[in-house]
Amino acid sequence: MAGVFITIEGPEGSGKSTLIQELSASLQAAGMEVVTTREPGGIAIAEKIRSILHDPAHTEMEARTEALLYAAARRQHLVEKVMPTLKRGALVLCDRFIDSSLAYQGYARGLGVDHILQVNQFAVEDCMPDVTLYLDIEPEVGLQRIHADAGREVNRLDMENLAFHQKVREGYLQLVNRFQERMVLIDAARPMEEVAADALSILQGKLKELEG
Amino acid sequence: MAGVFITIEGPEGSGKSTLIQELSASLQAAGMEVVTTREPGGIAIAEKIRSILHDPAHTEMEARTEALLYAAARRQHLVEKVMPTLKRGALVLCDRFIDSSLAYQGYARGLGVDHILQVNQFAVEDCMPDVTLYLDIEPEVGLQRIHADAGREVNRLDMENLAFHQKVREGYLQLVNRFQERMVLIDAARPMEEVAADALSILQGKLKELEG
Repeated sequence: MAGVFITIEGPEGSGKSTLIQELSASLQAAGMEVVTTREPGGIAIAEKIRSILHDPAHTEMEARTEALLYAAARRQHLVEKVMPTLKRGALVLCDRFIDSSLAYQGYARGLGVDHILQVNQFAVEDCMPDVTLYLDIEPEVGLQRIHADAGREVNRLDMENLAFHQKVREGYLQLVNRFQERMVLIDAARPMEEVAADALSILQGKLKELEG
Repeated sequence: MAGVFITIEGPEGSGKSTLIQELSASLQAAGMEVVTTREPGGIAIAEKIRSILHDPAHTEMEARTEALLYAAARRQHLVEKVMPTLKRGALVLCDRFIDSSLAYQGYARGLGVDHILQVNQFAVEDCMPDVTLYLDIEPEVGLQRIHADAGREVNRLDMENLAFHQKVREGYLQLVNRFQERMVLIDAARPMEEVAADALSILQGKLKELEG
């Protein structure tokens, strides 16, 4: 794999999609080929799985079913979109990846981080991100941002209560601690320009490291 | 769990659905509450997953994606339909379960029986069948039966070649050997009356064993 695989993680309202737009613009301005994508979805089969996952009518969706559907969408997206992009040497910026499953299903839903890791290792084989930026924010602040954004679709996970979103954050913090060689925490409570500047300098450092 | 969980396995055209109808009639005549169901499907979320799996347009479906989708449908069907039925003491006759994934994805697609077993152990936890009847038949004979049945829908898996279906059978035969305490092989090349009579006597023996 000649390309660079970057994933952006964080709770709802942490600013992942805005950051991805900013980073994409800066990296393209520096002459790189950048492909932005998101999970779950990104290609036809995964979008169909996404619509099952996000349908607010699916209140009977069980936690392990949910985890397996995310892993299935991840696999197909990885094979059809991420891997071919990396193969031709481009940089992939992906909104959510394996750590979302570890934090949401593994930790917050209580299925166990190691169980979810095992299922996801089957899904991703050895195609792990080169670097993962975790946008850290208090759930109260993140949820306020979401509710202030009238244009945003409300999905099944937005309907979870504050305690769940606090658990998600705890889960992410444990992952940052566990996967220090891959994950970097960025304080996302600050203005986006500061967050984007930090993220860009971290990525530039990482790109130099990968070249060297 | 007070009920009895019976799964029927075998390649395409082995006569699973006909046998299930026969067994259901006989067991109900003997005074038992019997619920028949099938995988993938059986409840709303799993039927949606089934439609993704069986869509002949999904030629780009990757083997690991397929395996994860089957496991997701299995989980939801188990939690919503099988477990509640067993809990109230009824007998469940299920067309396909974990062994289909082990034979088709694990063995025939070459993903590894133990990898698929691990993913499915996450899906089923400790809810395994009390007994599994494997309907053994030469793939040539099974496929002829399918093609003679004009009313049957042709799904994505029917489109696989003969070599694949031979691999599926090899996979099943290895499973029967590995899980002898649970799986029983029945020669399904014989007339249905003989197959059904054999199957019924095996189940009656098993039911006595479970009572004792």
